[in-house]
Amino acid sequence: MAPLRSYVAGNWYEPTESGSPLHDAVTGEEVARITSAGIDMAGALDYGRRVGGPALRELTFHQRAALLKALGSHLREHREELYALSAKTGATAFDSKFDIDGGIGVLLSYASKGRRELPNDTVYVDGDVEPLSKGGTFLGQHISTSLRGVSVQVNAFNFPVWGPLEKFAPAFLAGVPSLVKPASLTAYLTARMIELVITSGLLPEGSVQLVSGGVGDLFDHLTEQDVVGFTGSASTAARLRSHPSVIRNAVRFNAEADSLNMSILGPDATPGTAEFDLFVKQLVTEMTVKAGQKCTAIRRAFVPAAIVDDVVAATSERLAKIVIGNPASKDVRMGPLAGLEQREEVRRSLKSLLEAGKLVFGDPERTDVVDADFERGAFLSPLLVRCDDPNAAAPHEVEAFGPVSTVLPYENVEQVIDLAARGKGSLAGSIVTADSDFARQVVLGAAPWHGRLLVLDSTDAAESTGHGSPMPALVHGGPGRAGGGEEMGGIRGVMHYLQRTAVQGSPALLAKITGRWVAGSDRSITDVHPFRKSLAQLRVGDAVVAGPRTITLADIDHFAEFTGDTFYAHTDEQAAKANPLFGGIVAHGYLIVSIAAGLFVSPEPGPVLANYGLENLRFLTPVYPGDELTVTLTAKQITPRENADYGEVRWDADVTKQDGSSVAKYDVLTLVAKS
Amino acid sequence: MAPLRSYVAGNWYEPTESGSPLHDAVTGEEVARITSAGIDMAGALDYGRRVGGPALRELTFHQRAALLKALGSHLREHREELYALSAKTGATAFDSKFDIDGGIGVLLSYASKGRRELPNDTVYVDGDVEPLSKGGTFLGQHISTSLRGVSVQVNAFNFPVWGPLEKFAPAFLAGVPSLVKPASLTAYLTARMIELVITSGLLPEGSVQLVSGGVGDLFDHLTEQDVVGFTGSASTAARLRSHPSVIRNAVRFNAEADSLNMSILGPDATPGTAEFDLFVKQLVTEMTVKAGQKCTAIRRAFVPAAIVDDVVAATSERLAKIVIGNPASKDVRMGPLAGLEQREEVRRSLKSLLEAGKLVFGDPERTDVVDADFERGAFLSPLLVRCDDPNAAAPHEVEAFGPVSTVLPYENVEQVIDLAARGKGSLAGSIVTADSDFARQVVLGAAPWHGRLLVLDSTDAAESTGHGSPMPALVHGGPGRAGGGEEMGGIRGVMHYLQRTAVQGSPALLAKITGRWVAGSDRSITDVHPFRKSLAQLRVGDAVVAGPRTITLADIDHFAEFTGDTFYAHTDEQAAKANPLFGGIVAHGYLIVSIAAGLFVSPEPGPVLANYGLENLRFLTPVYPGDELTVTLTAKQITPRENADYGEVRWDADVTKQDGSSVAKYDVLTLVAKS
Repeated sequence: MAPLRSYVAGNWYEPTESGSPLHDAVTGEEVARITSAGIDMAGALDYGRRVGGPALRELTFHQRAALLKALGSHLREHREELYALSAKTGATAFDSKFDIDGGIGVLLSYASKGRRELPNDTVYVDGDVEPLSKGGTFLGQHISTSLRGVSVQVNAFNFPVWGPLEKFAPAFLAGVPSLVKPASLTAYLTARMIELVITSGLLPEGSVQLVSGGVGDLFDHLTEQDVVGFTGSASTAARLRSHPSVIRNAVRFNAEADSLNMSILGPDATPGTAEFDLFVKQLVTEMTVKAGQKCTAIRRAFVPAAIVDDVVAATSERLAKIVIGNPASKDVRMGPLAGLEQREEVRRSLKSLLEAGKLVFGDPERTDVVDADFERGAFLSPLLVRCDDPNAAAPHEVEAFGPVSTVLPYENVEQVIDLAARGKGSLAGSIVTADSDFARQVVLGAAPWHGRLLVLDSTDAAESTGHGSPMPALVHGGPGRAGGGEEMGGIRGVMHYLQRTAVQGSPALLAKITGRWVAGSDRSITDVHPFRKSLAQLRVGDAVVAGPRTITLADIDHFAEFTGDTFYAHTDEQAAKANPLFGGIVAHGYLIVSIAAGLFVSPEPGPVLANYGLENLRFLTPVYPGDELTVTLTAKQITPRENADYGEVRWDADVTKQDGSSVAKYDVLTLVAKS
Repeated sequence: MAPLRSYVAGNWYEPTESGSPLHDAVTGEEVARITSAGIDMAGALDYGRRVGGPALRELTFHQRAALLKALGSHLREHREELYALSAKTGATAFDSKFDIDGGIGVLLSYASKGRRELPNDTVYVDGDVEPLSKGGTFLGQHISTSLRGVSVQVNAFNFPVWGPLEKFAPAFLAGVPSLVKPASLTAYLTARMIELVITSGLLPEGSVQLVSGGVGDLFDHLTEQDVVGFTGSASTAARLRSHPSVIRNAVRFNAEADSLNMSILGPDATPGTAEFDLFVKQLVTEMTVKAGQKCTAIRRAFVPAAIVDDVVAATSERLAKIVIGNPASKDVRMGPLAGLEQREEVRRSLKSLLEAGKLVFGDPERTDVVDADFERGAFLSPLLVRCDDPNAAAPHEVEAFGPVSTVLPYENVEQVIDLAARGKGSLAGSIVTADSDFARQVVLGAAPWHGRLLVLDSTDAAESTGHGSPMPALVHGGPGRAGGGEEMGGIRGVMHYLQRTAVQGSPALLAKITGRWVAGSDRSITDVHPFRKSLAQLRVGDAVVAGPRTITLADIDHFAEFTGDTFYAHTDEQAAKANPLFGGIVAHGYLIVSIAAGLFVSPEPGPVLANYGLENLRFLTPVYPGDELTVTLTAKQITPRENADYGEVRWDADVTKQDGSSVAKYDVLTLVAKS
């Protein structure tokens, strides 16, 4: 059997060495071989930086987002093939859905977030303009630009599709090329998936490379522009994180490592309550999905001391119904572990756990399996441990990476928060309770040790995505033992691949760099009203000054009567005088913005299709009867849509009165035709 | 002389060992001794976590901000004393202003940002609610909570006041106690400043500790909840960053290290232009302020090849006018380095630079000094190096931490961007040019290697804060060689001390945890209009439903006429029909929000003082003549002000029509009296 191919420097690399065998988790048969011997790692990095990066940076965030969407659709067409390979890793159809559909879901989520939350540009403007001087001639603005290196992605074996894709999607959106290194054990699935990505021809050449096999001397060649995304064991994380190149070049190192995730049953959730059942059901799910080989799976189940027996009994009862065996068999709910070594490793960890507790369900040496051979496949029974001393060290320190959880008692909320923290940093935790006070206390107390916390009760259970499921819109990662990393979280995940830079300069310079109009920079006021310009004609800084219009007491009276807004500050001179902010009758804020619109509008049909919103409106100075209002409207940001014949234009509106002071400032959001 | 005291675990610690001597940089006389021998480092960390952290977390962000403000005022009262000590470090009055007033400025900036940009709460709500389900019963919300550890601050010798304060302020605001470890060389100034902080009695006990002397075994006791902030050499950064505790516990490690900052003179800025003069003036300033001992100082000055001679001549001419000597002497513009060892170190670095270039100004072995002894004080001439080969390695790699810069030629914009990147990551860079195209290209090309970039020209120079000045509102830090860290940047800097956690749950649960009303959670609608409730009475979720009111064609016509907003979609049925979004005459968005206000208002004087703004307004469905509008207004967030008898209330406004669909959604911002 030929070893898995790699894709580096624009070519498929076929190793000349024979490599190490990879085995079907169910049958033990050899399914592939793997080696990275002979790959020029420095060349791969260089190719990513030289070819992939520039090609990606030619595209805007929106264009990259559109490619992610197309890629998601493409992979979806190949689901069946990926599912078939996935079964060899021991995954049931449900497990594969989690991995494969979940991975495609990440692509689609980033496609959507990229279009909605990032500009159609190559530079991300981070936060507001910062005033740095009294006169306003010197300002600051943070921008974020694509790192010029490679996103080196070292993946774990348990999610051969989702794992690489959840790292790839934000890097790609950020304009940074990926080098994907799957874990060997299940690399044949990742390799096929990446092959589909590359042969799709959808992505710019160089934006994805694949190294099947070990990292070799890859890390020696990392520079300050590269980013490492690692998922795996804490010991490997520690080794890679302290690699001299990483340390010397302060290489960004984002790790997901060991995690002793907890789930807490609330004191209200006694047997017979919906939450009791939800807790038990979720615990069993987390123990058995992917045969418990999930870095987010529940390892520590904290239960009110008085009902430990009940929880153990109910959990055992459900576990007994789990059919284990060949995932190809219809009734099978739990497949084998990913390999025989993994089984031995879990057995060793169990032994450590059993020094502190006792086994209350399952036998690590045997279980009935359907349509498979227990010895040849990496099968293992779910194993439930009960540890009556919650202060024992092992349950908080030993991660048995398989279908293993420990039930621990607790007495009160303070204690359980303290116990949760003994995981020293976790990816995910859950609290199952209908008592929102209890939930609040635990969430706020446990949050510093957690990347994600789920509160499950009867009101959200039907729609809950569950304890173990990272979501693309939410951060995935955790402090301390969990690696200290943070992935996804929507656009937050993109920022890991961008360098934030504070730019200082004049308003005109900042406008030039960001492509947005900045207060204090020049406006272009011509005979042509900017509302008469299509996106193709409109330029940032195009402006109209309209007015003045005098606001009379009659206007205010009339507006109050017409709209019904008879708030005393607009209608009762005596009462308005007593208001500490006004000192007399003032115009309605809504009147001011309505009049302003009447001033700046260009009524005839034209490229401006609609005003779809308003942002950051602040009323700065009261308007009194007799004040004259002028409005200046300036094109601030122009965002053409990729797949429509219009785009968004954000206008800066500044309403001033006769003395020049600003009365109201806001952004007007419009849709404008491209031509 | 007794060694400097430390303040740990609630006590002033006076070492029993004699310690090492610290010398006056000007006279060489001993000014203090220092040792941390005997300090219980584990105890100090434990005290911070056990006493300081809980005390800080009792306070809201606004309360902590108020303390920072008070502390700034307190330190300002002791400026004279600090200036006197500062002179012993070699600092001129101007240098001290940078350090001492700059440090106080950071406190005040964080006080102001904390009040304006953080909630008056202990939990930071990060970003929007994330929908995670179709039915809306299951949502996500990121929150950030204070880490439960200690901010260990390892400072550099060059800014004994600013350095500790720029690390302390964001940590304090985040609710995390600080352990300040000054660099020995100038520790007597930091120690006195921290003594003023502690004896002020303003801060909660345990929120600041001081270790004068070495770190001892401090790092062995770091946990996943601690944060290290380091400023110093790259070699020390590498050593501390790879400490086993840091690696094993994934301790957040924020480093500012070596930086070969560049300044680029634009091709337009030929001799005789304002920008030429600005470049030369700035280069001299950066070489001589703090005797060039600034991690942001210009080390590489890139100049168009054709005018290298002119730049060298003009710079030398200015440098020749710099009076060096005892900072106590009125005319002195540049003091000594911080110590004799520093001078030797700079001389060694200069030797490396001179292998690639030649010395064109200054003599490392001698210079005239005023009111001081060249040999006993750590005096050094400004040293300008010229290196005609911009590809030589040394100028891009050797940081001579003193009054030393190298002038290098460049040919074109692509080349100078490439040369800038050879610093492999820098804290700050500047571009001096009136050519905004050139500036844009360089900024976007150099940004991935820089934490801060300044564009200087004749329009912003008068108000510019200069190449070398980090600003509290802007990030300070840089990738790669510069340490990969990021400090300050306003509230961004606070986030380094908070753990971000994704919380998943029902709308009611998220509302409970964040203290904010979440769409989908319960509203409380009673007979009492929520506008009649003071802050003391109002609760999140209090709501009013008002309406319906039918919008007639007459209303639209009238509004168009009254406001002047005669946009065709409101006035011309034929044209409105042709609009792809409307299909007929629609009501003005401004009419909708005005009518809504008329519906939800409670006119009589009461606790609601004013509507000061509107946010996130989106028009979601067109309103046609005959549609009936209803508005639901719900108290979403309540923010009492610390030092006023009112606070802000943010209301969720949802305008719906007869079929229940939302027509407009927005936040209404009001000021409401406390009682």
